[in-house]
Amino acid sequence: MALVVVNVMPKPEILDPQGKAVTGALARMGHEGFSVRQGKRFEIDVTGEVTPGRLAEISEFAEALLANTVIEDFEVIS
Amino acid sequence: MALVVVNVMPKPEILDPQGKAVTGALARMGHEGFSVRQGKRFEIDVTGEVTPGRLAEISEFAEALLANTVIEDFEVIS
Repeated sequence: MALVVVNVMPKPEILDPQGKAVTGALARMGHEGFSVRQGKRFEIDVTGEVTPGRLAEISEFAEALLANTVIEDFEVIS
Repeated sequence: MALVVVNVMPKPEILDPQGKAVTGALARMGHEGFSVRQGKRFEIDVTGEVTPGRLAEISEFAEALLANTVIEDFEVIS
């Protein structure tokens, strides 16, 4: 069982209302000097060995299913 | 400007309906042998230096605001 992580974040040029809400809440709580962007983290347990082919498969379904690539970037970390 | 990441994941013993939905969708699409858990990733731009005090502040608000520690674990990565 090996772990592969897929991170999905809003593209830099896209507004991020969740991140803005967190940034605003922090400021109201007195935590100044932080700017937050919020995305998703997928932890994928892979049965068997993580071969280049398996990683390519993960990239493929990350693009199709986990990220909306119009507004989000993703990275696959093994 | 330094980047600190906070990862928030459902605790291992907690059901993760989003992750289960993704796992099921993958299997239906023919991607077998993957088990997915879904959490959140916060990218925090910190103004100035990331001192131990700033990191402690981030841990504090991660626990209070970013994670629901009844059902989620978090880690702070700088």
